[in-house]
Parts: sequence; C-alpha cells; structure tokens
Amino acid sequence: MAPDASFFPPSGPFSAEELSAISGADLARRPGRTSRYDNVAALDSAGASEVSFLDNKLYTDQLKMTGAGCCVVRPENLELVPVDAAVLISDNPYLAYAAIASAYHPDWDETYVPQTDDDRIHASATIGDGVEIGTGAVVGPGAEIGAGSRIAPNAYIGRGVRIGENCRIGASASIRFSVIGDSVAIYAGARIGEPGFGFAVSDTGPVSVPQVGRVVIGDSVEIGANTTIDRGAAPDTIIGAGTRIDNLVQIGHNVEIGRMCIIVAQVGIAGSTKIGDGVQIGGQSGISGHLTIDDGARIAACSGVMRDIGPGETVAGAPAIPMRQFFRQTAALSRLAQKKES
Amino acid sequence: MAPDASFFPPSGPFSAEELSAISGADLARRPGRTSRYDNVAALDSAGASEVSFLDNKLYTDQLKMTGAGCCVVRPENLELVPVDAAVLISDNPYLAYAAIASAYHPDWDETYVPQTDDDRIHASATIGDGVEIGTGAVVGPGAEIGAGSRIAPNAYIGRGVRIGENCRIGASASIRFSVIGDSVAIYAGARIGEPGFGFAVSDTGPVSVPQVGRVVIGDSVEIGANTTIDRGAAPDTIIGAGTRIDNLVQIGHNVEIGRMCIIVAQVGIAGSTKIGDGVQIGGQSGISGHLTIDDGARIAACSGVMRDIGPGETVAGAPAIPMRQFFRQTAALSRLAQKKES
Amino acid sequence: MAPDASFFPPSGPFSAEELSAISGADLARRPGRTSRYDNVAALDSAGASEVSFLDNKLYTDQLKMTGAGCCVVRPENLELVPVDAAVLISDNPYLAYAAIASAYHPDWDETYVPQTDDDRIHASATIGDGVEIGTGAVVGPGAEIGAGSRIAPNAYIGRGVRIGENCRIGASASIRFSVIGDSVAIYAGARIGEPGFGFAVSDTGPVSVPQVGRVVIGDSVEIGANTTIDRGAAPDTIIGAGTRIDNLVQIGHNVEIGRMCIIVAQVGIAGSTKIGDGVQIGGQSGISGHLTIDDGARIAACSGVMRDIGPGETVAGAPAIPMRQFFRQTAALSRLAQKKES
Repeated sequence: MAPDASFFPPSGPFSAEELSAISGADLARRPGRTSRYDNVAALDSAGASEVSFLDNKLYTDQLKMTGAGCCVVRPENLELVPVDAAVLISDNPYLAYAAIASAYHPDWDETYVPQTDDDRIHASATIGDGVEIGTGAVVGPGAEIGAGSRIAPNAYIGRGVRIGENCRIGASASIRFSVIGDSVAIYAGARIGEPGFGFAVSDTGPVSVPQVGRVVIGDSVEIGANTTIDRGAAPDTIIGAGTRIDNLVQIGHNVEIGRMCIIVAQVGIAGSTKIGDGVQIGGQSGISGHLTIDDGARIAACSGVMRDIGPGETVAGAPAIPMRQFFRQTAALSRLAQKKES
Repeated sequence: MAPDASFFPPSGPFSAEELSAISGADLARRPGRTSRYDNVAALDSAGASEVSFLDNKLYTDQLKMTGAGCCVVRPENLELVPVDAAVLISDNPYLAYAAIASAYHPDWDETYVPQTDDDRIHASATIGDGVEIGTGAVVGPGAEIGAGSRIAPNAYIGRGVRIGENCRIGASASIRFSVIGDSVAIYAGARIGEPGFGFAVSDTGPVSVPQVGRVVIGDSVEIGANTTIDRGAAPDTIIGAGTRIDNLVQIGHNVEIGRMCIIVAQVGIAGSTKIGDGVQIGGQSGISGHLTIDDGARIAACSGVMRDIGPGETVAGAPAIPMRQFFRQTAALSRLAQKKES
Repeated sequence: MAPDASFFPPSGPFSAEELSAISGADLARRPGRTSRYDNVAALDSAGASEVSFLDNKLYTDQLKMTGAGCCVVRPENLELVPVDAAVLISDNPYLAYAAIASAYHPDWDETYVPQTDDDRIHASATIGDGVEIGTGAVVGPGAEIGAGSRIAPNAYIGRGVRIGENCRIGASASIRFSVIGDSVAIYAGARIGEPGFGFAVSDTGPVSVPQVGRVVIGDSVEIGANTTIDRGAAPDTIIGAGTRIDNLVQIGHNVEIGRMCIIVAQVGIAGSTKIGDGVQIGGQSGISGHLTIDDGARIAACSGVMRDIGPGETVAGAPAIPMRQFFRQTAALSRLAQKKES
C-alpha cells in the first residue's frame, strides 16, 4: 500500500533504470515486462507498481512474500526476491531507498505556513457544526474538523488532517499527516505526526529517509501534554480506540498500539514495535524497536524491554524479565551484598 | 473541602437517592436526616454536604475518620464509614465516583477558546501595572496577572488563573486551573494544570474521572521548559516556595512538593506522592505514586523509588535502596560476574 | 571569552573593590595595577579584564592556568590563582559569582515581548529571500533568518538569534540566544536556549546564576519535537554539524556535542559534559554532568553513564559498564537467583 496521496502525492513514475540511476544501486534483475513504478511502499503491503527494500534481516520473510514490483536488497539477498520483481542491489539498501523515496517525495515534510490571518483557517478546510477554533490556531488546506470539536488557541492542524467529532485539541498542540477518530482528547503541547527518527548512514553523515506514513488514532483515545507521536516511515503509526497515553510519552514511527492500552508518563516506544490490546505500561519504561508485546501484557514502571512479551505476561527490570524473577534477583543480590560485607 | 468553585462551579445538589441512580451504586445506608449533597471532595477534607469514596485501601484510615456526608465504598467496607454518613456500595467505587463527579462537574475540562482577537485578553481579566502580554497570548475570563509580570507570546492563561507579581511565563506555555505566587518563572512550553491521568476501568474501557483540583505554586518557584504539572483530581497539586524544577519533568495529580526542593530534568513523580522540604531528586528518576519522601531526602539520578524515603536518607538504584547499599550491590555483582568467568 | 554582547550587553565595569561589595567576598589579593573588570567569563577562556570563579574542584587545573583578571575562590585556593590576578575569597564562591554575574547582567533572561502585531516581526530583523514566516510567529529585534528558511506558525525567534539558510523551524518551537547553521531542522515544540538549571545554594534558598552563554548549532543538525537544549551558563552549549537528536531529549547547559552523533528519544545529558564525534546514544539513557564521552562511543538504551567513556567504547547498564560485562552480570545474577530458589 503506497503512502496516502492526500498527504504525500508522489512524483514519478520511474522505470527500473531510472531508479537505478537515482539510487546508485545496480539493476541486477529486470522484470520481463517493461515496467514503471509509481511509488514506494513497505514490503508487507507493496503492490506490483511499487518499490520496496530490505535492510533489517528481521524482515527477510516479508521480502520472500512481498508483492512489490521492485526491491532494493543486498547482493546476497538477490535470490530471495520473488521472481516476478525487478531487483536493485546495493551494499546499503536503506541509503539507496532514501534516494528513491526522496525522488518520489521531494517535499515529504511539507508544512502549511499561512502568512496572513486570512489564510490561518484555510478556505478549503471543512469545519463541522459547533466547532470552536481558538485565536492563533491554524487549520490547513483540505483539513476536516468534525462537529463539536474544540481547537484551543495556537494549535496547528496541518494540511489534509482529518479530526472526528467531539474532539478536544489543547493549546499549542500540533497535528500533521494524521487521521483522528471521534471523542479524542489531545492535550496541550502534544506533537502528533512529526517525522520519525529515520535516516540512513552514509560516508558523509546521516541521510534523511522520507517519512511518508501517517498517524492514525482511534476513537476515544487520550494523549497527554507534550507527548510526541511520530508519523510512520511508510506504514502508519497506529493508536487503537480507547487507549490512554499520559504526558511526555514518546512513540516512534510505525508503532502500532492496540485498543484500551494504558501508557503512563515518560514511556518511550521505539520504532516498529507492535503492542496488543489492553497492555499496561508503567511510567518511564522503554521498549526497544521491532518487538511484539502481546495482549494484556503488563510492564512495570522503569522497565527496559528488549525482547517480545507474551500475552498477559508481567515484566519488570532492565532488561525486563518476568516480575517474580525480577523480585527474586533483587532479593538474591541484596543477600549477596550483605554476605560480602560480613 | 470541595473543589474551588471559581474553577469548578458545581451542578446539583443531589440527594443520596439521586446519587445512587447516577452511579448505579446501592444506597446501603441513608442518614437519619434527609440530605442533599453539594459536591465531591477528598476523604480527608470532605464535609457533611460532600460525597467521597474509598477505592485504594491505602486510605482506609482516612475513610474511618472522614467528615464526608456520603461515601461510596466496596460492600466489605460498609461498616468502616462513620455512622452519620450515607453509604453507597459498589464493586467498583472509583467507577461509581466517576459518574457522580461527572454529574457535579459535567464540563470539568472547560477550556476558554477565544475566537476573535477582541476576546484574546478577556475584558474581565485583571491586569496589574507594568504587565507585558505578548502577541498571540490568551488571558481568560476572570484571570489575574500581578504587577510586573511578563507573559511571552502565544502563552495561554486559562479562565480564573491567578498569577502573582513579577512572574515570567515563557513562549507557548499554558496554565489552567492554577494559582501561582510571586516571582515565579515558568519557561517555554511548560504545561501547568492539564488534567491528571485519572480514569476508572469499566467493561467498556477507561472512564475519565473529573479532575477538579488545581495546581498551587508558591513564590519564587521555577519550572523548566516543556515540563508538565497536572492539576489535582480533587485535592490540589502543590509546589512549595523556592522549589526549582528542571525541563521535561512530569508531576502527577495530587502530588505535594515542599519548599526549596531541587528536581532535575526528566524526573517523573506519580500521583498523590508527598515530598518534603529541601528534597533533591537527580535527573530521570521516577517516584511511584502514594509515597512519602521526607524532608532533606536525596535521590540519585536514574533511581526508581518504590517505597517511602525517610528524612535525610540518600538512595539510588531501581528499586531505590540506600546509596551505600547500592554501591555494595554494584560491587558484589561485578565480583560475581568476574568469578563466573574465571 | 566574555558572553556574546549581542545577546548579553554587560553593565559595569566594576573595580575589584566594587565586586567585593557586590558579592560579599573578601578582596584577598589586589593586582598591582588598579583595574576595572568588564565582564564575567569561564575560567578556561577568561581574559585580563574578566572575572571568573572556581567552585567545582574538577576544574582546579583550569584555575591554575586561567587568564582571568579576577577570581572568586574558597580561602584554601587563594595560592592557586595566577599571581597577576586579583582574588576574592568566599566560603561559597558560586553564590558570590551569582551576585557578580547579576551585577553585570541584571536582565540576563531578557525576552522580546511584542505587544502589537506590527512588532511581531521586528523591523530590525533581517529576513532572507524566500523566507516563509507563519502567522503568530515572532521574530525579535536584530534577528537574522537566512534565505529559504521556513518558520512555522506560532514559533518564537528571540532577539538577535541568527538562523542560517534553508532551515525549518516547527510550529510553536522557541529559539532564544542561539546561532544556528544552514539546513537545520528544529521540529515542533522544541525549546532552544532557555536558561540552564543553574543556581547557587544560599541560606535563604536557591539563587539564580545568570545564564549568559548561547546555543550554537552546526549545519544539517536535526532536533526533535519537544526536545529542550539549554543555553550555556557562560560558555556556549554546542551541537556539531550533522548530529541528529530525537524527540523529548534534554541537553543541559555548557554541553558540547560533536559532529554526526545520533541521540535517541528521551536521552538526558547533564551540564558541561563533552561528547565527541560519531557518538550514538540509545533512548532514555542519562549521562551525568562534567563527563567526557569520546569519539565513536556507543551507549545502549536505558543506560546511566556516571564516568568518562573512551573512544569507540560500548557501554550499557546503570551505572553503565562495558557491554560484554553488562551481559555477563545480567547472566550471573540470573543464575544466582535460580540457585537460591532450588
């Protein structure tokens, strides 16, 4: 699935030869039919007209089953690409992908900047009945604000953002590249949809990878003050209905959080981690990227989670381990230290 | 003590029967006299015309001595309620309380949203001599800004907020439901008085509990950039005079912090914890809810405090233990790992 | 080197006798020539017309070699001050320095507060070709915005701030006392140049020490949403070219970060720590103040760094130790706890 064109209209299309020239990757296999490609997409959702890549070997199985029409991979992975797809090979597929994605999306961090008060609430925005929009607040072109919603002063609603009914957006909060359900509360200073922390490493320093996914927020979600939720890199960042997120929480790009989760203040969730329904995460805990936390898991405050957590499992510590084991280790260490002393 | 009516004017009053109907809790004991109740209040400060509840057994002693005229409790706690109070029983007293508090305070997160520049600084606000108010800043109805204070551009001062003399409020900071002393500095992007992370768990997901307390800040307090201090649930969140709080700190609802404390960046203090005078808390430390940290305690950086800390005690680690013990444990573990190796 | 007078124009000059009167420190040694001092400065960069101080004994070597014309020190350090400098002695040199610095810089937290829309973008600011400045954004007197830069709505650019070409400043971000290179991205809600957490402890509570350094940011740096970077106390806070900083990071005053570093979300770096080039710091890690982290060091997520880290070293844990040792300790503790059980 390509990026949402209402936020990220693609340039192109480009042929496999053009993509090779753009990225510096070698065209190692060309498909039988002459093709042109319309856009980039994630491996697990790409279609025949889309380009994808494999960099993190964690996703090798996705490569083998991808529907992408063109893939950028390391030389040793050439044979893993499904036979009907073109293959570009590179020693640094992520860097090559960055160049390709930048060609499709040269203005991927497009920001609506009204410069006169007449443009502050853009004429093309759709404003529902009974909506209040405070002084200084911005509503971009094509944005939609559902009936009964309240946008506090100096908030920023970017181009094309859709906000449901009866939402409350706090003072100076900002929302970009996002689709938000009904009855959602986003408190003051929260940052929804800023670009994720995505870059490829090159000899001349980090190169930004276009962040062309959205933030999708379900009904009745609450998001605390000064919390930051980055938009996806190509898939979306998703927050399920009824989930409550406290203040100063960081949620990285591509994270998926289920329904009715409780995420206490200052938690950090790194990119691409998937969290089930009804998960509870104590304050200041950190969760590494690319993990799966199953339904009903409970993570104690101040934990550092470095592995998958099974359904209903309760963990604590850094690295996080089952809670009972954590308490045993704490007790064992305490006894050990006393013994040394005597 | 009921919520400050200047911020939270109550609906009602309601009779015990009405409260039973509103909450679904059974009226298990009705007071001799026919009563109507005016408001909700915390157990330890409620009066005869107020309704309170017991959910966390930590506060059972407060229930036994409460002056509340009506209490919502679990069935097994019926006999603990003072004899002259009405009793509502429920298997989920917090959820029942949420319904009752919502009946008294249906618009408990009221937000002043001026929609024209003429209303940006409300005509009913009181502005002292020499006050500077920047472009884009909002000052709500009934708010008071003391002489010599400076409100930077795009800051938000909500309805009824009182700010003392010679205060400095930073760019895009927001302050709601708060009473602030003299010579206070609140730096850019700080969020004072957003609702606490309070909800009851129901079968259909979390249900918000009205947050009807304030933030009360003493003289000469400093609050760092992008720090968040939630307002109380029913009692106030309190920051004592002379206390310094660094950037990106999270302070939960009902927290009380004494005078002259030093709280370094990224600390998190969970709800209802009480901190004495002169306490020093190192960066990134977390403190669980409902604890007492006594005067002069020192908490090392990166600690996770899960128990009360005595006066003058110095702790480190997660879970935090006395500093000397922490260093002994660290050394013992280091020796143990070396031994296994050899 | 004295504070940048374009941000911090000094009062004075003051004689050694006047400085003694201002600070309550005793004039223990007066230079041969009668001198007047123009400003304060850090020990390692102060010149003959400047006043400095020693409080933290970590910097004793800097005292011995200082070029400062006047030093405030503890009585026992009198003889360490170079012979051609005047010496003020105090039992609390930091508190004495706070008084002196306040005399030179009584309005050290000067904030431009336009009160009419005509002053929102000050007439004396220099705006390059093709610059976009959003509604509600403030640009202070003497500020410079380079060609092609984009300032999103409601951002705040303080007096005298220099921003290079092709920069992107996010919604509601604020920048004060800073000098910023080309192609820098500062995302929504970031706080650049707020005062550091600096105060001396007195009998009557904390006394603010003027923060008269800047934030200096190199080319192509990116700074995440709601991140806070405090300005220096007297030296500058420095971020090297190409460095990427994620969301909700805290960087204290006087911190120096090299080129091409990667700093993941919610990291905290305490004051005066120096970080080399190409350093990678995992999410939620904390680094104590006054440390040196050498080129190419890697710090795992959730670490607590309490000592210097050598070039290329990889560490983990709190307190942070070499990564291999961390895994050995984790395994040893796990075995120990199992043994106790059996």
